Amino acid sequence: MMELTILGCHSATPRANKHTTSQLLEVQGNLFLIDCGEGTQMQLRKCKAKFSRIQHIFISHLHGDHFYGLVGLISSFRLLGRSAPLHVYGPKGIKEIITLQLKLAKSWTDYSLHFHELSSSKSEILFEDEVVSVATLPLDHRVYTNGFLFTSKTTKRKINTAAVADLDLEHYHYRQLQQGLPITLADGRSFENTTLTLAPEPAKKYAFCSDTAYLESLIPLVQGVDVLYHESTFLEKHADLAEKTKHSTALQAAKVAKAAEVKRLLLGHYSNRYTDKEEFIKEAAPVFDAVFLSEDLKTFSI
Amino acid sequence: MMELTILGCHSATPRANKHTTSQLLEVQGNLFLIDCGEGTQMQLRKCKAKFSRIQHIFISHLHGDHFYGLVGLISSFRLLGRSAPLHVYGPKGIKEIITLQLKLAKSWTDYSLHFHELSSSKSEILFEDEVVSVATLPLDHRVYTNGFLFTSKTTKRKINTAAVADLDLEHYHYRQLQQGLPITLADGRSFENTTLTLAPEPAKKYAFCSDTAYLESLIPLVQGVDVLYHESTFLEKHADLAEKTKHSTALQAAKVAKAAEVKRLLLGHYSNRYTDKEEFIKEAAPVFDAVFLSEDLKTFSI
Repeated sequence: MMELTILGCHSATPRANKHTTSQLLEVQGNLFLIDCGEGTQMQLRKCKAKFSRIQHIFISHLHGDHFYGLVGLISSFRLLGRSAPLHVYGPKGIKEIITLQLKLAKSWTDYSLHFHELSSSKSEILFEDEVVSVATLPLDHRVYTNGFLFTSKTTKRKINTAAVADLDLEHYHYRQLQQGLPITLADGRSFENTTLTLAPEPAKKYAFCSDTAYLESLIPLVQGVDVLYHESTFLEKHADLAEKTKHSTALQAAKVAKAAEVKRLLLGHYSNRYTDKEEFIKEAAPVFDAVFLSEDLKTFSI
Repeated sequence: MMELTILGCHSATPRANKHTTSQLLEVQGNLFLIDCGEGTQMQLRKCKAKFSRIQHIFISHLHGDHFYGLVGLISSFRLLGRSAPLHVYGPKGIKEIITLQLKLAKSWTDYSLHFHELSSSKSEILFEDEVVSVATLPLDHRVYTNGFLFTSKTTKRKINTAAVADLDLEHYHYRQLQQGLPITLADGRSFENTTLTLAPEPAKKYAFCSDTAYLESLIPLVQGVDVLYHESTFLEKHADLAEKTKHSTALQAAKVAKAAEVKRLLLGHYSNRYTDKEEFIKEAAPVFDAVFLSEDLKTFSI
């Protein structure tokens, strides 16, 4: 299972209680931070996230509402005595921005800080371990921008506790069962794996796409994902502004969701000009009805 | 009169409801921003400050808790359609940090943005107009750091509305009275200025000193100021930490206030290790009893 917490979902300038883009994705205990607008570290505190469990930060692009909180978070990690390494993935230039500030403050990190600068216009895998892989989703915005696709891997089979209750299992039997193997007990009895286990949780896919103009080439890349977060800075009545600024409308986000046959669509990156967010749902739902609104500090299970 | 609003008064890492250093000083309608920790623009919104009236920003030093909110504020000014020029005063390097980020975001400001980079170790006047002058207060910290001394100028004399109630004054008579001149009416009657006016408000002095070790040379520079804000990151029980990190204790701040014969002392820049802020008062008051605690979003009249 994945758990997605929206730390901020508003565009451009933060307000007293409206935070700019940042999301925290938990995949089997690992925390991934996606974008990092100003004040993200305060939002992380509000949702009681354990800072040291964040080891990978993905920055979509170098507009301030998506990364101005990064240098502060990196600095706070140091002040809080972090020892775990940190990996930052983002557009070329991000390393210079951060290191210049740490250098002038004479505050280089004690923990190891790795920058992975991106410049490819094709989807590429950035990170992969036994539980998840992360790939870029090239987007179309005013500056070089990537979305990110998180794919969790099929986990181990689950022990059927009722079925094994009367069996005298050794530790290695559990491991064999989780791996899908049959087992043989000390008394000679053998069991097929499926008689003692339940199917593992299926792999999950989460696609984060902000900021972008409506983009046909995105559709095959997010085909069938469990949740698609697609920016909807504007409503159709401001389609001219969306086109000019290379953003999307709620209707365009819904069209991508429908064409890609995703399971759920999550809207966000709202322009501050709109007070009633339900208008976004009203615009998207006729095209794609499994549509939801991002809200600061709201959590979604994937 | 000056009015000082504390936007943030905590050190090092911001918390959910504890903001790092930033202060807004109003001098006869002009707003001066002093330091700009992460999230300052949200704090400015909370106290409903009019962004366009901030034309001068003073940054004491390049530690993150004093300036990580600056680039976001500068960007928001642009997004909100600012046309007024902005002057930023701060240590050498501040221009490169800000301009690099604006360049990579392809978001150069439409308004004129002037950087005044500081490197002198002597007090110097940074800005002066008809209502206020601002001078640096060289401090002793781990990186090049200045405090700032704001001196308001004596304002025009005030019209004694009761005394002029029965007189048929022209517009130019008011101007002459405000300037301290006698007036002659159309009917030939003359009046001494002091019979129709009240004394102007006296000049006021506000000294901002954060961050610094205990510093003897500061005393003559802040002699007799109306309010001295002096950092007190630590209590005496952590005097070793204060010395090591070039910060001050509440007791040291009180000693500076007493030696400089200031009217009021304002403490702040508290370390997050202390939960009971009254301990700072208890430590300072035996040496200097006109001592007050900074609190986020609290306003002090000077």
